[in-house]
Amino acid sequence: MQAAYYTGNQEFNIQPATIQPPQPGEVQLRVAYCGVCGTDVHIYHGAMAHRLRLPQVIGHEVSAEIAALGEGVTGWQIGDRVTVRPLQPGADDPSDNGQRHIGKNLTFIGIDSPGGMQSHWNVPAHTLHRLPENLSLKLGALIEPLAVACHDVRLGELQAGENAVVIGGGPIGMLIALVAKHKGAHVLISEPNPARLELAQAMGLTTVNPKDTDLVAEVEWFTNEAMADVVFEVSGVAAGVQAMTNVARARGRIVMVAIHADPKPVDLFRFFWRELRLIGARVYEPEDFEQAIQLAASGELPLDNLITQVSPLTDAKRVFETIDANPAGMKYMLQCDV
Amino acid sequence: MQAAYYTGNQEFNIQPATIQPPQPGEVQLRVAYCGVCGTDVHIYHGAMAHRLRLPQVIGHEVSAEIAALGEGVTGWQIGDRVTVRPLQPGADDPSDNGQRHIGKNLTFIGIDSPGGMQSHWNVPAHTLHRLPENLSLKLGALIEPLAVACHDVRLGELQAGENAVVIGGGPIGMLIALVAKHKGAHVLISEPNPARLELAQAMGLTTVNPKDTDLVAEVEWFTNEAMADVVFEVSGVAAGVQAMTNVARARGRIVMVAIHADPKPVDLFRFFWRELRLIGARVYEPEDFEQAIQLAASGELPLDNLITQVSPLTDAKRVFETIDANPAGMKYMLQCDV
Ligand SMILES: NC(=O)c1ccc[n+]([C@@H]2O[C@H](COP(=O)([O-])OP(=O)(O)OC[C@H]3O[C@@H](n4cnc5c(N)ncnc54)[C@H](O)[C@@H]3O)[C@@H](O)[C@H]2O)c1
Ligand SMILES: NC(=O)c1ccc[n+]([C@@H]2O[C@H](COP(=O)([O-])OP(=O)(O)OC[C@H]3O[C@@H](n4cnc5c(N)ncnc54)[C@H](O)[C@@H]3O)[C@@H](O)[C@H]2O)c1
Ligand SMILES: [Zn+2]
Ligand SMILES: [Zn+2]
Repeated sequence: MQAAYYTGNQEFNIQPATIQPPQPGEVQLRVAYCGVCGTDVHIYHGAMAHRLRLPQVIGHEVSAEIAALGEGVTGWQIGDRVTVRPLQPGADDPSDNGQRHIGKNLTFIGIDSPGGMQSHWNVPAHTLHRLPENLSLKLGALIEPLAVACHDVRLGELQAGENAVVIGGGPIGMLIALVAKHKGAHVLISEPNPARLELAQAMGLTTVNPKDTDLVAEVEWFTNEAMADVVFEVSGVAAGVQAMTNVARARGRIVMVAIHADPKPVDLFRFFWRELRLIGARVYEPEDFEQAIQLAASGELPLDNLITQVSPLTDAKRVFETIDANPAGMKYMLQCDV
Repeated sequence: MQAAYYTGNQEFNIQPATIQPPQPGEVQLRVAYCGVCGTDVHIYHGAMAHRLRLPQVIGHEVSAEIAALGEGVTGWQIGDRVTVRPLQPGADDPSDNGQRHIGKNLTFIGIDSPGGMQSHWNVPAHTLHRLPENLSLKLGALIEPLAVACHDVRLGELQAGENAVVIGGGPIGMLIALVAKHKGAHVLISEPNPARLELAQAMGLTTVNPKDTDLVAEVEWFTNEAMADVVFEVSGVAAGVQAMTNVARARGRIVMVAIHADPKPVDLFRFFWRELRLIGARVYEPEDFEQAIQLAASGELPLDNLITQVSPLTDAKRVFETIDANPAGMKYMLQCDV
């Protein structure tokens, strides 16, 4: 019964959990695993400080069993295996146009409110998705990033037989590549890190290292000069933004998945010249979680390859230090039912 | 029987036209009017020199009557009133994905080959669109830029009742605003030039001067905080690119009409955060010409307001000098059947 409180300055305080009864509409989860997201690492590096209330439990990539039901919660039972879609919509804003997952007043559970790096976690029942029996709780903690990938592929309207280029082979880029390939697309993933390239190859992906090879020439070769129908920018760096417009075909779709904190130069001439399209994509909608669960449960994606290490919650600080020291690692998980 | 040869260095040489018989598949036009496009002014300022073969006749916004038919031309008769869609598709390229109007090997008639600032002009018959009897030849020379506007509004998938913001009130922005309004959209046009603002108001458009007024606040007011469903970036300046992401609603569409010669900083964070979409738009397809002709012939757009001045072809040099001296002017036309 533990909770990992992030206290600022790259320090965690592991404390006995204060187990609180779920409020009306909430469930109490007994968390099994909580994955460490790039966002959590950013927080560890001092980002988003204005959104946190330190000391705070962070984390949002969770698998769990329901431990208790708050008043008025229906459709769920104690013992149900679940994952959490960590979005709390706020009041509708006229500029949201009904898109609640990107609403102006949306808050993100695990940043704007306490997260999953604890053994007992209360969340609104509307955030839950059921995990099927044949899906392990470890893979259950991968559903959240996999739902990101499902959302991105869906918004890119990627079709079977199309050519896709994924720029950036971090956890998100890798998942996008796997989902795209499973959809029947012809996928090339561009990534400079040799260890990540090796992992991608081990998962059956076709790779290119943009530091060694001319990416445009490689895409020409890979697509028989048709170029990419869909490009996913998942690197978050200026070089990725520069590359994305050069590898797309006429009217190609470029899905902007990466979070670029500052404005970056974009080749707007090429948007005009080749009638390119840029599609911003953020988090997920409920159907993306459902698709991610189905995909993971199908066993058709080599998801186990993405789990670099599983450590007890009590090692939280060491895990973040390891991530910093090992940029090739992919998904680190904390086991929370300790 | 004259032709205006652009000789470089902001000089035109007006010469008697050498009237050549149309080649097979071509028609010989007797040009009535040729509008001066921003592109022509760019050429006059030294741009695109590598694409021209000086001395060269430029111009591509034309109304005309057919004077002679080349071998194998069917469906047209001498005397037919026409306008020209100045695109010559080249060999298909695999990366074109069938989009011939933006094909890699496309050439633009009036830049890459001789244009319409001459009394007699031979063009491929496939470029012609018929002008109805009730459409004046002056307005006929406005069809090309109006087709640009129709293309942009179509690619933006603008619907009746939606809110549109047009950034930039030059000839193209003004035409986009008129087409958008005619489609039943609620249109606000942003333009800093007072004379152009006045003209827009005279045409019944709602305007904002972004130098005097906070554009975001104005769009909030104009849309009851729903913000723009569709934004058209037609200014070609960094301030327009900066504004475009700030005035769009969640999942708003931003149509990139302007030609930005150099990469410009784009708020990619906002593309992610609000799932915005950028849609590159270039020239037109045949259906846009047909729609433009129908719209112009309907008499429902105040197109006459856009014609600043009509001058004889022999005054070409003076007209370009006048344009340079009068940035508020809109469409200058050369009368070519002189
Ligand atoms: N849209 C969303 O809702 C959402 C959700 C999660 C993450 N993200 C964002 O997606 C991005 C990727 O997330 P991640 O966790 O996989 O991050 P990551 O940093 O692990 O992955 C980025 C990868 O890009 C690679 N890269 C660097 N330069 C490159 C280049 N020139 N070409 C190709 N690849 C290059 C890096 O080596 C790295 O492997 C981040 O920007 C993250 O913030 C967005
Ligand atoms: N996509 C295409 O096929 C196509 C076709 C024709 C023209 N174009 C391009 O469209 C653009 C507009 O063409 P045009 O002939 O109307 O040019 P223009 O230069 O006459 O119009 C641009 C207008 O933007 C205004 N402007 C400047 N700063 C502004 C700001 N901060 N906010 C709002 N407006 C601002 C200017 O005052 C000017 O009136 C150009 O970039 C042109 O190259 C594209
Ligand atoms: Zn995450
Ligand atoms: Zn033009």
